[in-house]
Amino acid sequence: MPLSIIIVGGVAGGMSAATRARRLDENASITVLERGSFVSYANCGVPYALGGVIDSDKNLVLQTEASLEARFNIDIRLLSELVEVDPQTRRVNIHDLESDNFYKMSYDKLILAQGAQSVIPAIPGMGLAPILTLQTIPDLQKIREFISNNSCKRAAIIGGGFIGLEAAENIRKLGLDVSMVESSSHVFPPFDDDLASIIHRELESHQVHLLTNQKVTEILEDRSSVKIQLSGGETLSADVVIVAVGVRARAQIAETAGLRVGRSGVTVNLFMQTSDPDIYAVGDMVEVENRISHQATSLALGGPANRQGRIAADHIFGNPTPYRGNVGTCVCQIFNLTAATTGFSVQRLENLGFRPLWVTVHPPDHASYYPSASPITLRVAFEPGTGRLLGAQAVGEKGVDKRIDVLSIALQANMSIFDLEHVELGYAPPYGSAKDPINMAGFVGSNLLRGLVEIVHPKAASHLTASWQVIDVRSPDEFSRGHIPCARNIPLDQVRQNIQHLRKECPVLVYCWVGYRGYIAYRILRQAGFKVANLDGGFKSIVQGGFADLISPVIPEA
Amino acid sequence: MPLSIIIVGGVAGGMSAATRARRLDENASITVLERGSFVSYANCGVPYALGGVIDSDKNLVLQTEASLEARFNIDIRLLSELVEVDPQTRRVNIHDLESDNFYKMSYDKLILAQGAQSVIPAIPGMGLAPILTLQTIPDLQKIREFISNNSCKRAAIIGGGFIGLEAAENIRKLGLDVSMVESSSHVFPPFDDDLASIIHRELESHQVHLLTNQKVTEILEDRSSVKIQLSGGETLSADVVIVAVGVRARAQIAETAGLRVGRSGVTVNLFMQTSDPDIYAVGDMVEVENRISHQATSLALGGPANRQGRIAADHIFGNPTPYRGNVGTCVCQIFNLTAATTGFSVQRLENLGFRPLWVTVHPPDHASYYPSASPITLRVAFEPGTGRLLGAQAVGEKGVDKRIDVLSIALQANMSIFDLEHVELGYAPPYGSAKDPINMAGFVGSNLLRGLVEIVHPKAASHLTASWQVIDVRSPDEFSRGHIPCARNIPLDQVRQNIQHLRKECPVLVYCWVGYRGYIAYRILRQAGFKVANLDGGFKSIVQGGFADLISPVIPEA
Repeated sequence: MPLSIIIVGGVAGGMSAATRARRLDENASITVLERGSFVSYANCGVPYALGGVIDSDKNLVLQTEASLEARFNIDIRLLSELVEVDPQTRRVNIHDLESDNFYKMSYDKLILAQGAQSVIPAIPGMGLAPILTLQTIPDLQKIREFISNNSCKRAAIIGGGFIGLEAAENIRKLGLDVSMVESSSHVFPPFDDDLASIIHRELESHQVHLLTNQKVTEILEDRSSVKIQLSGGETLSADVVIVAVGVRARAQIAETAGLRVGRSGVTVNLFMQTSDPDIYAVGDMVEVENRISHQATSLALGGPANRQGRIAADHIFGNPTPYRGNVGTCVCQIFNLTAATTGFSVQRLENLGFRPLWVTVHPPDHASYYPSASPITLRVAFEPGTGRLLGAQAVGEKGVDKRIDVLSIALQANMSIFDLEHVELGYAPPYGSAKDPINMAGFVGSNLLRGLVEIVHPKAASHLTASWQVIDVRSPDEFSRGHIPCARNIPLDQVRQNIQHLRKECPVLVYCWVGYRGYIAYRILRQAGFKVANLDGGFKSIVQGGFADLISPVIPEA
Repeated sequence: MPLSIIIVGGVAGGMSAATRARRLDENASITVLERGSFVSYANCGVPYALGGVIDSDKNLVLQTEASLEARFNIDIRLLSELVEVDPQTRRVNIHDLESDNFYKMSYDKLILAQGAQSVIPAIPGMGLAPILTLQTIPDLQKIREFISNNSCKRAAIIGGGFIGLEAAENIRKLGLDVSMVESSSHVFPPFDDDLASIIHRELESHQVHLLTNQKVTEILEDRSSVKIQLSGGETLSADVVIVAVGVRARAQIAETAGLRVGRSGVTVNLFMQTSDPDIYAVGDMVEVENRISHQATSLALGGPANRQGRIAADHIFGNPTPYRGNVGTCVCQIFNLTAATTGFSVQRLENLGFRPLWVTVHPPDHASYYPSASPITLRVAFEPGTGRLLGAQAVGEKGVDKRIDVLSIALQANMSIFDLEHVELGYAPPYGSAKDPINMAGFVGSNLLRGLVEIVHPKAASHLTASWQVIDVRSPDEFSRGHIPCARNIPLDQVRQNIQHLRKECPVLVYCWVGYRGYIAYRILRQAGFKVANLDGGFKSIVQGGFADLISPVIPEA
């Protein structure tokens, strides 16, 4: 008897499982149930199709029902919704949305790949505006039609995560005014506050009106548009409202069927088996182990979903390859910027109970003497003592995705900050530097762990400025364009001759623009017997991070 | 008594050692001897300054003698050539090239960073043309002057390595006709033959006249220009000749001083100490361990030189951090292409006695539905059984440096092809795919090791075509634009219904354009009881690799 496999969900994880299953077994009966009217389409491209960057929705459809059936001999059932699973009898109840009929099917193995659904917050008046989300091709078409039919001029986006940010960029491309409301202190949740400030400035420079630390308390009718009442008191008028506050695993049916479900999704083992060994679950609907916190977390990303689908099929057909957990690597385009991260931010690490050390560098993406070099801000967090890598964040115009991918592998290989000193990366002037940004972070972090330097982070610096001597070692010209209020300017090359003018009993905070000259000054002063600290990431980190109390008299150009 | 350190060589390795030494010790006496008239300049940028990409030679000078002295309190002596080292008395003999005086200096620690010199082959008539090489700022200025003074129209470049390739591109930018003579079968030595063919086509499409498998046998005078006689019989006329056949470690003085010298450079331990513990050597002049072959090899690259200089200084000042050896990661721009590699090519592995397996994939650099996606050709070599990574080569217009850097870290972390299946990389449509090219190589390689597929490489395919059934599973339209001569066209989606028309006793070679459809056909046929092999990298690898006997009737567009 050939094995009968039913797969619920026809994109990423589901379709990877289906095609892998067929390649492994010509005889299996493989059925894919898909609620929607498309299979195997590229959800990740949906925001870009809205903005016209991807010029036809058709480009998002990677395979059709017919092409998949012909190639893989898979029974694909569109508009077919899973209603119920009975693990005892190994049967599923299916709602045919087209005919409105219900019918049952038996399975030997069931693979759930139901994904996650957009969260709709319960806000009074939410019903006044159509609740538009941006996840699927129908979502995209609905937004496009709504904007066109209502000649919308002003869009409000609620939520500043990946989808919110991609939506903002693409709706700006359509020419609408865009406001973004974010309930936390910053957009792009996997970033630290001060690094997210760089994204905030990019949004604002593209006329996205950003409102952080603001909850939507009510939505009010206002002729053909709506008024959004914010917790801060402000009201926002909008013709179209897009809700992008996150997604929630579609775990209801699994739960009803008695499968184990965790805090954020269906519980699975390393082979993607649920608590019922004949039922697998993959993709956005499951919890998998985070390799840093070792907690079960959900991660709504296409890469893991695809690999998990493959793993489920492999396990069914006797080719067990355990899933290795996630480090949470992700990347996002925000107008001209790329923001990317792997592992955890410093804030998240601290919330998880880690006591990380971290360093921030601002090197150019490639050799500064070769045209079009552009700075990257790179932060690497690591464990005290061992130096084990815990996370990295990077933002800039170029070369950001490369550095975070490299650091993602370093994290997956359990490397330490000491390893980053030594890693060998391809170097030619158009691509990098003899000392790559990753090496630079390794140098700074290793110096810190070896006791060759002490650093102070901008967020801690304001507490020191009252009692410490603050020395700005940049040029007088740089100093004149903005500096820490109480700082004294002693350019680096004059530090040695000015040591006698510093008070030895009082600790010294040194800084420059990005940290390197500050570090040299640190070494000079420390060897002269001073207690010293260097400002992590230099004055640039203060300016970028928006630490207004540490900036006087004017803000220099970043 | 402060330590007295003499450093010989004022770029990359030498200057990294000098500045690190100063940061570690304010009191040490640090002297840098430099034969030339520049210190701390960017040799790697020299070819780009020739072509005007870097618009002023001044941009190559990162630090001046004065700025370094002021900042680091280093005694920098330009035009000062090391003549002799006496390890017994710990003294060096120095030739002041400006005054033509000789004098001695004592050291406690000596760091040699003398680099490598361009090899000038002994060819009859070489004296007729000025021997121009392209390594330093003076070299660059000499070439520029020569071209301008002699109104050169035709350049001949002897050697197709990094410098030769960068020279070709930049001299084309100056408007000269360029010919390149390469003695081996292909340019870019770290690549396999067939992948280098892609570079050959790029050179030719930019009007670089390429002559491979040709040695220069003689250079003859020809009025104001020269005639270059080639081993193949052809003669080449040129107004300017640039020799770029490689570099040789400057190990003579070390050798005379009795220091141990290996086949390709000065022998050092992990802390960059030579056989005399008070003498260190770093950079292009030393041999270090290759982490794959475990052989001592020289590697004339800026990254390792910089890190080695730092390691020497660290060791002197009680901060021992061993050098970890190289995996040989490098990257090169060739007009619109990027070629990069880490570890060894298949050919080099075979020469070293390895019996590697390898797979070739041609995925797009980012999601194909997002604009401007462009294919990468990626080859990964690994050990049979364990799957340990041994090398990777990639070429394409975009995203090549990223993939090779990621694979470089994977190699440095001793990862296997199985690990590549699982590695988590940042994915959003502008940057990659849910299944990154690196995952794709991992999938194919793991399938191979797990026995899920057998593959045949293009270079082995010609031996099979006589006795095997060859099935092209692409569309009739693709087939009509070129295919393997004896191939029969059965489009993938019709393979199942055509199984009965194939002879079971005869093995089947299947192929498509890049290998994926061929793999699906492989799985169908194998499960139907056939002996099958899939063509690695598909017909695209045949076309790109220039396997002319496997192409009929016309070459399709790549």
